[in-house]
Amino acid sequence: MSTKTCLYEGKAKRIYETDEPGVYRVAYKDDATAFNGEKKDVLQGKGRLNNEISSLVFSKLHEAGVANHFLRRLSETEQLVKKVTIIPIEVVVRNVAAGSLVKRLGLERGDVFREPIIEFYYKDDALGDPLINDEHIRHLGLAAPEELTAIRANALEVNRVLTAMFDEAGIRLVDFKLEFGRDEQGAVLLADEVSPDTCRLWDLETGESFDKDLFRFQLGDLNEAYETILTRLGGISR
Amino acid sequence: MSTKTCLYEGKAKRIYETDEPGVYRVAYKDDATAFNGEKKDVLQGKGRLNNEISSLVFSKLHEAGVANHFLRRLSETEQLVKKVTIIPIEVVVRNVAAGSLVKRLGLERGDVFREPIIEFYYKDDALGDPLINDEHIRHLGLAAPEELTAIRANALEVNRVLTAMFDEAGIRLVDFKLEFGRDEQGAVLLADEVSPDTCRLWDLETGESFDKDLFRFQLGDLNEAYETILTRLGGISR
Repeated sequence: MSTKTCLYEGKAKRIYETDEPGVYRVAYKDDATAFNGEKKDVLQGKGRLNNEISSLVFSKLHEAGVANHFLRRLSETEQLVKKVTIIPIEVVVRNVAAGSLVKRLGLERGDVFREPIIEFYYKDDALGDPLINDEHIRHLGLAAPEELTAIRANALEVNRVLTAMFDEAGIRLVDFKLEFGRDEQGAVLLADEVSPDTCRLWDLETGESFDKDLFRFQLGDLNEAYETILTRLGGISR
Repeated sequence: MSTKTCLYEGKAKRIYETDEPGVYRVAYKDDATAFNGEKKDVLQGKGRLNNEISSLVFSKLHEAGVANHFLRRLSETEQLVKKVTIIPIEVVVRNVAAGSLVKRLGLERGDVFREPIIEFYYKDDALGDPLINDEHIRHLGLAAPEELTAIRANALEVNRVLTAMFDEAGIRLVDFKLEFGRDEQGAVLLADEVSPDTCRLWDLETGESFDKDLFRFQLGDLNEAYETILTRLGGISR
């Protein structure tokens, strides 16, 4: 463990500088939060699970040619990533109707979209992360039009790779949230994490949830479910 | 007045069949509603004002080459329009930050957008008319992609024509809501109404509101303001 100061503390992670320029250390926390921080708990072991799963996912994305910030797994709860400045847009990709969208648009939970739906949310806790469109993004100056085009294409590619990856593990990738950042050269890179905290993952056969909805709605043991995901993806379980 | 049955009754208008195929009669009501029907009142004379203003606006749009459903003014409170099937999308065009957007995105009321912002809302009272993007529209089957392209271009053209029209009358066109419909040949036409019920209109010099915000927030006499708009646009005032 380095003694570098923490640059940023989010709900689920801390970001530290390292001795290497342009490289950050990400330490996953055991904190679980939902509903914009209104529901909180500490779940021993959750940080390890998200770090391991996110490391597996980002490695897979690298193999598939999707540029991302991940450099390497450092320890059970830590990874090294390329320094980026996060673009304050939460990019949500949806394959199946679930969560807030069901109520918002009057859909049936479980409806399969013929083509994935991409949504942009303004990453701003004080505003409650509102849904935004391309023109709001332009006015707020969050991303240039060509960056948004790249983000959309990238999100669809991530969806293709991860849908196949989870499918092989008997898991349906229902929806997920991505964040992108700009590296020091201004290139747009996938960043943040991809874990059961940021995805909805259902058992392909039973429909059982293996994601943060278990915590959101007190439906079952979160760590047990995340451990199942890690094992099914071929990671080192305990 | 015809004795034809009412085909549709909305919050501000009734639509009737006529003896002429493909032609509807629109009768404007004196009802004022706001906040998705939660606030209601009857304001004697409001139907006349909206009919007169909307007739002037649609005539102006015709002259400027913007295809729309308006055929002719029939009486103080009625007009004849081409029969269309309304596309259930509320198209909002914003030139200046006002209304719900200010709170939603944390903007300053009165901020001028460098380029107009277009938003789509799903016209569904039960769902509270939620903001939607192009992909929600595709999934819900509300409009084909090429129709959406036409609607966007049309909305921007309407904005150009009406911004100039109101500017000449000393009024700033802050934002407005449009609805489009398909005629019997499937062509997309501007429909519904354009009136101070569906626009935010501020005095160019004083910033005074001349629109439904007066009713929404009990800021002043609605009919007096609408009468001012009608007079300034060169319409027959009383």
